[in-house]
Amino acid sequence: MAVVVNVDRDRADGRRPSLERLNALVAGDLEAVNRVILEHMQSPVALIPQLAGHIVAAGGKRLRPMLTLASAKLCGYSGRQHVNLAASVEFIHTATLLHDDVVDNSGLRRGNATANAVWGNKPSVLVGDFLFSRSFQLMVASGSLPVLKVLSDAAAVIAEGEVMQLITSHDTDTGEAAYLDVIQAKTATLFAAACRLGAVVAERPPGEEEALERYGMNLGMAFQLIDDVLDYSARQAELGKTIGDDFSDGKITLPVVLAYQRANVDERAFWHRTLENGEQREADLHRAIALLYRHGALGDTIERARHYGALARDALGVFPDSAERAILHEVVDFCIDRVY
Amino acid sequence: MAVVVNVDRDRADGRRPSLERLNALVAGDLEAVNRVILEHMQSPVALIPQLAGHIVAAGGKRLRPMLTLASAKLCGYSGRQHVNLAASVEFIHTATLLHDDVVDNSGLRRGNATANAVWGNKPSVLVGDFLFSRSFQLMVASGSLPVLKVLSDAAAVIAEGEVMQLITSHDTDTGEAAYLDVIQAKTATLFAAACRLGAVVAERPPGEEEALERYGMNLGMAFQLIDDVLDYSARQAELGKTIGDDFSDGKITLPVVLAYQRANVDERAFWHRTLENGEQREADLHRAIALLYRHGALGDTIERARHYGALARDALGVFPDSAERAILHEVVDFCIDRVY
Repeated sequence: MAVVVNVDRDRADGRRPSLERLNALVAGDLEAVNRVILEHMQSPVALIPQLAGHIVAAGGKRLRPMLTLASAKLCGYSGRQHVNLAASVEFIHTATLLHDDVVDNSGLRRGNATANAVWGNKPSVLVGDFLFSRSFQLMVASGSLPVLKVLSDAAAVIAEGEVMQLITSHDTDTGEAAYLDVIQAKTATLFAAACRLGAVVAERPPGEEEALERYGMNLGMAFQLIDDVLDYSARQAELGKTIGDDFSDGKITLPVVLAYQRANVDERAFWHRTLENGEQREADLHRAIALLYRHGALGDTIERARHYGALARDALGVFPDSAERAILHEVVDFCIDRVY
Repeated sequence: MAVVVNVDRDRADGRRPSLERLNALVAGDLEAVNRVILEHMQSPVALIPQLAGHIVAAGGKRLRPMLTLASAKLCGYSGRQHVNLAASVEFIHTATLLHDDVVDNSGLRRGNATANAVWGNKPSVLVGDFLFSRSFQLMVASGSLPVLKVLSDAAAVIAEGEVMQLITSHDTDTGEAAYLDVIQAKTATLFAAACRLGAVVAERPPGEEEALERYGMNLGMAFQLIDDVLDYSARQAELGKTIGDDFSDGKITLPVVLAYQRANVDERAFWHRTLENGEQREADLHRAIALLYRHGALGDTIERARHYGALARDALGVFPDSAERAILHEVVDFCIDRVY
């Protein structure tokens, strides 16, 4: 069923990398994943499906579950367990988003009101716990202890990363290494687990598990860094998407870390006031963006993302050339290319 | 190693039921559980062991893990898996307490400052997530899928119960049936799972699993109802323990449900003001207690607890007479007797 594609040739043709081929590869399975998600959100307690439905509907492109599905296909898996596992991965992601928005006091996510803005913090905390439990029920239903180990270990690292992020948030002294530790734990670890599961469920040798883990981890780093750039990006604003959420939340992301390190006294005072003290005025986002450009902080963050992207592509070297591998390469290109 | 005891004779002797024999039965294993808890609280992120240590230290008598240990002994289990599982049960309990205190805005738990009062809500949410993940890691380490099923199902029901409680909290129209549903989900389900695990880990037949589940479920109901009474109890106040936490949190517990149903117009206005609207004045707790006594609400709640206690004792009928069974009977008596 898979069509052989040559991503590099396509790029030479000027075609932009996209998720189209990934979508086509996993379309049938992803529908099954969405059905599992919908079923497992249900509860006689009506507030649970209401609130969960709000975040799941706003949940975006389902990149993480698609990675599990595509990784399983890369490994030649022909069973059905990967559907439940992909749903489990998405539930962990969704539960984390709910708790993130509470911890960040976020009112908007992708331009929509957050669940905590609509229903308050308390239901968001508890429905997050519910979705987290559901993710474990789905894993247990897989009947595979190696699967359970991958996901329960990932969940612990993610939670650790969230606490790390809380400690560093609003702290302009956060260095690049500390920031990378945070995003590796809180974002890249779930990408790594999502990909690794493909090899685990297909019972492939450890080398392939590790390769997919490295692919996912580096892809996750690149993805988060580009997300950090997009939040300040004129390109994003042109497309009518919201920008400045990280800034208004007082989040210290890599562009800010770099701009702060290169800042003069006056500029540092600006970052202190806006991000540490949270005193923001109308033109501040505009000035923040100007400072990021002046110091090349956005361009350099993209360079860092490219570095991780290259590592992600190379990690798949242990797999023979195939349509699936080309698609996973294109996912890396897409994650980086969306910034332009 | 077990000493044969006759609880009923002891009671006839006027001896009060206590946890002493339970403590003696599981002492060695409980030390091992405490070591596992301490090890698994650790993290390079210093805030995690600090905050987790605060709640674990204040965590009380470790009743739930002791139930797992004692149930395993009742089933003749001689391995070591029950230690990790007991720790896992305690971690679920601790994570739930952290999130409960955030959701209830509680400042005090058993007379000590809550973690959210010391560190704020955000770290409490995230460290709760961390402990929840740790509990899953411990379960996975057991290598037993039936164990994982019991605990992941319990976690989902508990989270559902927490959301139910949130919806009914501050609502004086909550009926007895709705309240019992809440405490069955949020409290009794973990007692049931804790006990059931003893039979699961010992690979006993389904009838024994179900018997221990019923024992735990009914014990948990009795335990929670007596807790509800103690929060308003003169006896508790005499012992120098805090009372009135539920009242100041605006919680609708069974004593309040019963007193409200039996109240006149003036009294209903009092409950509305204090619990629904949260407007509390100095003498209000005193008046609340007087109303509970006037309507026999505390005594009747104790009667309900006795009913569940009787069901718990009877559930163990499938097991032959043994020191362990007598001790589990005494736990029921202790849970109820502590109100006097």
